[in-house]
Amino acid sequence: MTVKPLLPIDDVVLTPVAFRDPPLMTAVGVHEPWALRTVVEVRAGGLTGLGETYGDLPHLTALRTVAAALPGLDVFDTNGLAARVTAASGGDRPDRHGLTGASSVDKTRARLVAAFETALLDLQGRALGRPVSDLLGGRVRDRVPFSAYLFYKWAGHPGAEPDEWGAALDPDGIVAQARELIARHGFDSIKLKGGIMPPDEEIAAVKALRAAFPDLPLRLDPNTAWTPTTAIRVAEATAGILEYLEDPTPGIDGMAEVAAVAGMPLATNMCVVGFADLAEAFAKRAVGVVLADHHYWGGLRACADLAAICRTWDVGVSMHSNSHLGISLAAMTHLASAVPNLTYDADTHYPWLTTDVVAEPPSFLDGAVPVPTGPGLGVVLDPDRLARMHEDYLRCGIRERDDSGYMRSVVPSYDPALPRW
Amino acid sequence: MTVKPLLPIDDVVLTPVAFRDPPLMTAVGVHEPWALRTVVEVRAGGLTGLGETYGDLPHLTALRTVAAALPGLDVFDTNGLAARVTAASGGDRPDRHGLTGASSVDKTRARLVAAFETALLDLQGRALGRPVSDLLGGRVRDRVPFSAYLFYKWAGHPGAEPDEWGAALDPDGIVAQARELIARHGFDSIKLKGGIMPPDEEIAAVKALRAAFPDLPLRLDPNTAWTPTTAIRVAEATAGILEYLEDPTPGIDGMAEVAAVAGMPLATNMCVVGFADLAEAFAKRAVGVVLADHHYWGGLRACADLAAICRTWDVGVSMHSNSHLGISLAAMTHLASAVPNLTYDADTHYPWLTTDVVAEPPSFLDGAVPVPTGPGLGVVLDPDRLARMHEDYLRCGIRERDDSGYMRSVVPSYDPALPRW
Ligand SMILES: [Mg+2]
Ligand SMILES: [Mg+2]
Repeated sequence: MTVKPLLPIDDVVLTPVAFRDPPLMTAVGVHEPWALRTVVEVRAGGLTGLGETYGDLPHLTALRTVAAALPGLDVFDTNGLAARVTAASGGDRPDRHGLTGASSVDKTRARLVAAFETALLDLQGRALGRPVSDLLGGRVRDRVPFSAYLFYKWAGHPGAEPDEWGAALDPDGIVAQARELIARHGFDSIKLKGGIMPPDEEIAAVKALRAAFPDLPLRLDPNTAWTPTTAIRVAEATAGILEYLEDPTPGIDGMAEVAAVAGMPLATNMCVVGFADLAEAFAKRAVGVVLADHHYWGGLRACADLAAICRTWDVGVSMHSNSHLGISLAAMTHLASAVPNLTYDADTHYPWLTTDVVAEPPSFLDGAVPVPTGPGLGVVLDPDRLARMHEDYLRCGIRERDDSGYMRSVVPSYDPALPRW
Repeated sequence: MTVKPLLPIDDVVLTPVAFRDPPLMTAVGVHEPWALRTVVEVRAGGLTGLGETYGDLPHLTALRTVAAALPGLDVFDTNGLAARVTAASGGDRPDRHGLTGASSVDKTRARLVAAFETALLDLQGRALGRPVSDLLGGRVRDRVPFSAYLFYKWAGHPGAEPDEWGAALDPDGIVAQARELIARHGFDSIKLKGGIMPPDEEIAAVKALRAAFPDLPLRLDPNTAWTPTTAIRVAEATAGILEYLEDPTPGIDGMAEVAAVAGMPLATNMCVVGFADLAEAFAKRAVGVVLADHHYWGGLRACADLAAICRTWDVGVSMHSNSHLGISLAAMTHLASAVPNLTYDADTHYPWLTTDVVAEPPSFLDGAVPVPTGPGLGVVLDPDRLARMHEDYLRCGIRERDDSGYMRSVVPSYDPALPRW
């Protein structure tokens, strides 16, 4: 019994784009002046579904191989998508974005499936006249709250004018940045990207945030910049202040050592980055909150599976972010709206973005994005913006993200090795 | 932001039905002459979605309370269904079907959600013109294989004529029953319901099946009739013969004790019967195969979640059955078609059924049910049959399943306590 697909894919278009990115510091360097993404357009029956994924060249090359294998696939057949990715992708490719550790075939496949699954769900929703949240079980909340994502940063990129945000290199600068982000978007919680300054300075920044915002949940994420000993010291100094401490130290065993004594849950998007990590991490009680990210967990449905697992093991779920565009913000919003136990405010880099590819970018209202209620994801491409941002991609010269190399170009002695303290 | 439901439920109709059931023996007694189910019809926008669930009176009463709370709910909002069930159901009610142990609020809620979730997915599919398998990610197989489900049985109910199957009380009778089931439906695997005869007789039956069907996977399910010591002895005697041994002994700790030495995986629909059981059972390596059953796990999507968990922990998934009608057979078929790791042939009592409520009952082709490709579940009610089977419900006098009481009415000394050997 072979059945004709009812809405077969006609065509897939992949467009790498670049956009200006401020010098946001991370534990392994600093954001380059341009960030890359790939915009995915899947066409079927006169409709277009949108996806968004990493823009690095090796990933883009793999995306192109998969895209060539997709015409004819029914847009409802996301299981079939996974099978075609497995058949077409072959081998593993490193990922520098999630800081997700050694590459693997499973990780590569998950990133490729995710890139297209979002577009297929968008297409399903458009064909059916239903929001993507309905395809995930229906929204349990009408607005998805995000947190203010703070970064240590220079005033501007070296050699360029200061940007609109200015410098943030000490507690005062961090508090000022929080005030500005909250003034603009109304966020009700705050996350500080750490692992940049010596731990005592970051503890001071957390305490300054607590003093300035007595009622807002606070988080600190040093991206494994600390040894377990240092992590335990920071956990003690911030107990009662932090909602959770994110990836204080590398590895499941290190996290378990810290988790056993820390006064707050440990969150992660580094030691648990795929389904293969869950059994060991949960058995060792290494993490209290898993940060879902549909871009590398394998898509929106895979993140719903992850959330079901976390619910079953009584582990929290929050949401991780890389620099991204409005397509991903919409996808994250639909997902978070339909997962009952995704109760922490989600991370997003979106407020740092100055240009988007979508015609009417999602916006924050009191720190939350209203869940789109129209068909599909609820965002449409602006073809002029897409063309301009593709031009920027062609001109910017960056083909793979390299925070460490960029930092070394400014600070030649910079050593990105972690843990640092 | 409040959004009007796009396809609100207008009405819910619950119809308890009864159907003739042969005297199939179980570890706690024998099937009564009538089995009960409740047929669920959910109406929205001129369409009807179908569900099927247990027919016992306490469950039916709870279903009625929930049904009254459903009008207005969007049929796409299965998360909202769960919320309304939680609000309306209140308290726990025992279940005598899954042998799922002590009742709990969670178990009661899961059974109630499941009863309506199937109907909502059927409605979604009908509204969208897509099969339910597409709402679960798309079918990865076009046919779902089931196993031949053998039972020790009397020739007929006491005081009645022998039924068309005749007696099966020894290895020869069991082999003859298998031949008949396979001749009719083409099954490629065999399950024997055990826990009836002393273990050595059941071992002999398994060996007779192996001799008669050298190539077919075999399973034995004594429903916790044995102590761990007996279970280990049976496991040794059937190693290399059984594909899996199902619920040989009660409890997670008992199962873990047997699993540690058994030469085959242990399957269960008794010690892992809800999400709350998974963490402990997996940590103790008590089970190698979980038998999903959407009727008590909380619906088709919950079973897909369960399968994702089993995939993540490298535990197998198969499918449990109680006496059921064609609506549930269709639902089980859609689910099994869309879950990549549901690779074992599923259990079903369906071949023992002589009357169904659906107009064109699903049928087995070479032991498998072709996955319906029309909208929704792909089955429709026959109103005359439904009316007749409801009449039978009203007349049959049974309101709660009681295998043990029925056995005691025939064998007054019968003691259903387990483990028995
Ligand atoms: Mg992080
Ligand atoms: Mg069983």
